[in-house]
Amino acid sequence: MYSVCVRDHFMIAHSFAGEVFGPAQHMHGATYVVDVEFRRPQLDDDGLVVDIGLASAVLREVLALLNYRNLDLLPEFAGRNTTTEFLAKVVFDRMATAVTDGRLGASAAGLTSLRVTLHESHLAWAAFEAELAAR
Amino acid sequence: MYSVCVRDHFMIAHSFAGEVFGPAQHMHGATYVVDVEFRRPQLDDDGLVVDIGLASAVLREVLALLNYRNLDLLPEFAGRNTTTEFLAKVVFDRMATAVTDGRLGASAAGLTSLRVTLHESHLAWAAFEAELAAR
Amino acid sequence: MYSVCVRDHFMIAHSFAGEVFGPAQHMHGATYVVDVEFRRPQLDDDGLVVDIGLASAVLREVLALLNYRNLDLLPEFAGRNTTTEFLAKVVFDRMATAVTDGRLGASAAGLTSLRVTLHESHLAWAAFEAELAAR
Amino acid sequence: MYSVCVRDHFMIAHSFAGEVFGPAQHMHGATYVVDVEFRRPQLDDDGLVVDIGLASAVLREVLALLNYRNLDLLPEFAGRNTTTEFLAKVVFDRMATAVTDGRLGASAAGLTSLRVTLHESHLAWAAFEAELAAR
Amino acid sequence: MYSVCVRDHFMIAHSFAGEVFGPAQHMHGATYVVDVEFRRPQLDDDGLVVDIGLASAVLREVLALLNYRNLDLLPEFAGRNTTTEFLAKVVFDRMATAVTDGRLGASAAGLTSLRVTLHESHLAWAAFEAELAAR
Amino acid sequence: MYSVCVRDHFMIAHSFAGEVFGPAQHMHGATYVVDVEFRRPQLDDDGLVVDIGLASAVLREVLALLNYRNLDLLPEFAGRNTTTEFLAKVVFDRMATAVTDGRLGASAAGLTSLRVTLHESHLAWAAFEAELAAR
Repeated sequence: MYSVCVRDHFMIAHSFAGEVFGPAQHMHGATYVVDVEFRRPQLDDDGLVVDIGLASAVLREVLALLNYRNLDLLPEFAGRNTTTEFLAKVVFDRMATAVTDGRLGASAAGLTSLRVTLHESHLAWAAFEAELAAR
Repeated sequence: MYSVCVRDHFMIAHSFAGEVFGPAQHMHGATYVVDVEFRRPQLDDDGLVVDIGLASAVLREVLALLNYRNLDLLPEFAGRNTTTEFLAKVVFDRMATAVTDGRLGASAAGLTSLRVTLHESHLAWAAFEAELAAR
Repeated sequence: MYSVCVRDHFMIAHSFAGEVFGPAQHMHGATYVVDVEFRRPQLDDDGLVVDIGLASAVLREVLALLNYRNLDLLPEFAGRNTTTEFLAKVVFDRMATAVTDGRLGASAAGLTSLRVTLHESHLAWAAFEAELAAR
Repeated sequence: MYSVCVRDHFMIAHSFAGEVFGPAQHMHGATYVVDVEFRRPQLDDDGLVVDIGLASAVLREVLALLNYRNLDLLPEFAGRNTTTEFLAKVVFDRMATAVTDGRLGASAAGLTSLRVTLHESHLAWAAFEAELAAR
Repeated sequence: MYSVCVRDHFMIAHSFAGEVFGPAQHMHGATYVVDVEFRRPQLDDDGLVVDIGLASAVLREVLALLNYRNLDLLPEFAGRNTTTEFLAKVVFDRMATAVTDGRLGASAAGLTSLRVTLHESHLAWAAFEAELAAR
Repeated sequence: MYSVCVRDHFMIAHSFAGEVFGPAQHMHGATYVVDVEFRRPQLDDDGLVVDIGLASAVLREVLALLNYRNLDLLPEFAGRNTTTEFLAKVVFDRMATAVTDGRLGASAAGLTSLRVTLHESHLAWAAFEAELAAR
């Protein structure tokens, strides 16, 4: 299995509901450094897993919808705790849709799975990974 | 599959038996930077893989039994080479027991696997991972 | 010159005033990974620059006043842009006061300067450093 | 499953053919920081996944054939784009052959899979992994 | 003294002249991860060392003239070994000129020094730093 | 001012005397990842701060005298706490002597200062730096 991974980041504000979150129930924020790993069993005709320039551009577009936002105000997250693991899934879903919609190029049809990792500090990260076929 | 990972470290002395170890047969030591990755297919009701505060606290307790010790003197390791890969399994077993015993909270029952990585330098690391169901 | 550095982090929400900030004028947030470097020309009688346990504990106390907060609501920052470089100075001042007040132990009187670095992402950091004698 | 990983690097020049590569069609170069992860379900009699000294030495030999070279001039890569993902497979194949040939020691026969990762910058990496049994 | 640092990278081919370089006399290449640190004793009216968006954009322009190039073919480097330390000075000079020319904004006139670091692998880096007043 | 930095590591056992050290009074150990930064105001005739191959080889020799040792048993450290900051000075002194003795080549006579940093974990490091002229 081949992988290619690209990195970017976004910075948001949010708060959590639930006693388990302790002081994180207050409005606070985070920088998330995001790694998106693309996987496929065979390279395309150019010797690539994915066009890395296109992958970086699409990731930037996906993160731009979250970057510099207060996630508590976004309708799509109403009633949800936007934990790091939850947001990893959000980025996964949007990147997977971009693959399906052809926004990463025709050869990206050969991709079989993605893994999205969000680093929230030097001490913790969360990830979501799944097959693309399951979609 | 969702993952959450927390990081901590411990510092120990030990020596190895066997010619394969060369100069590491002498008493020496290491800093191990430890990553524990918790995995589950579904988030809990709070949107979490695991209570990260609880996970960090339990990891600290587990490492406290090894930290600042000469591993050659610990009865549970008598006759064993406490290599990095061996210690990764030790930390895995103790963290897995903590999950099973409910020390990471009731919702941690949804965890399905763990991966423990010990970084011994900027050039080398070892890991152990397994399903929790196999226990 | 000797140095010792300890690392911790905090997570906050804030917004900025001024066109130069572009989308960062919205409420957003950041994780700041903080390095505090303590400097002195001679070691103390124990062979130390500073008691690293005490230094870490005091840094944790200093960051606890910022962690999980919306900085826009803190009276001491009213009318100020809490940029990364501004916050580096805030942490510097509070750590320097702790040194002066003896909270890092008697031997910390030998410290001559501090450097505080705040990493805001994998792409950017800010720092403030100064002599302690200038205080 | 146990893992041990060792790190080294190599520095090469090359150029790519195909419009998808944009300015990378020019002669340019890269530093590749290489991680080779060795995996097996049981430790050997010494408590090891692999003799880390031997693994590092063999990796160095494998990379020496690529280091400080213009890959466009190497006959074995004629007509191929030596992308990061392609090179990850090249290093995988050579390390796998070394395992099979006994160059990592007799106990390395217990290894079941390898993963080779090439970091090309702080923003991107590529990897290739496979079972050794498939060879 | 305040600092702000931004990171980017470029990938080049080159060769060196002189026996001291050993195998690096062959055409090879490198990824350079570049950190540019901007320093000044007082923040500007917005609470900034430098407009980080502008600084990143100018750095990108400066590196674009080197990125994906064979440095042996660039007239400005004829007869010179483009070592990592030499290139750190090249990037310094071009960033310093950008400051002087006002390309980092009017408030950048308050900058007093720069430090440019080029990371060439996980094992080595080079830097050049100087006062801007000396120009 | 130009800098070049090379990285290596060593792994030792030791114990500390003094209540300030708490549990570190027990025999324990550490991995120290070592950065040695060489500085000079002008490059040599080859465009170098130092011959990086020679610098790495000498650093390896210096660290070999400490690597895989119990520092409590080394006569030169009798009665001393081999703290991270103390060891940074030890490595500094030995590297500075190597420069003075010509072991880094004739052109290394142009070096004016060194900085030695020992990273003991992901949370802490210590350093010693000084002019070489002061020797």
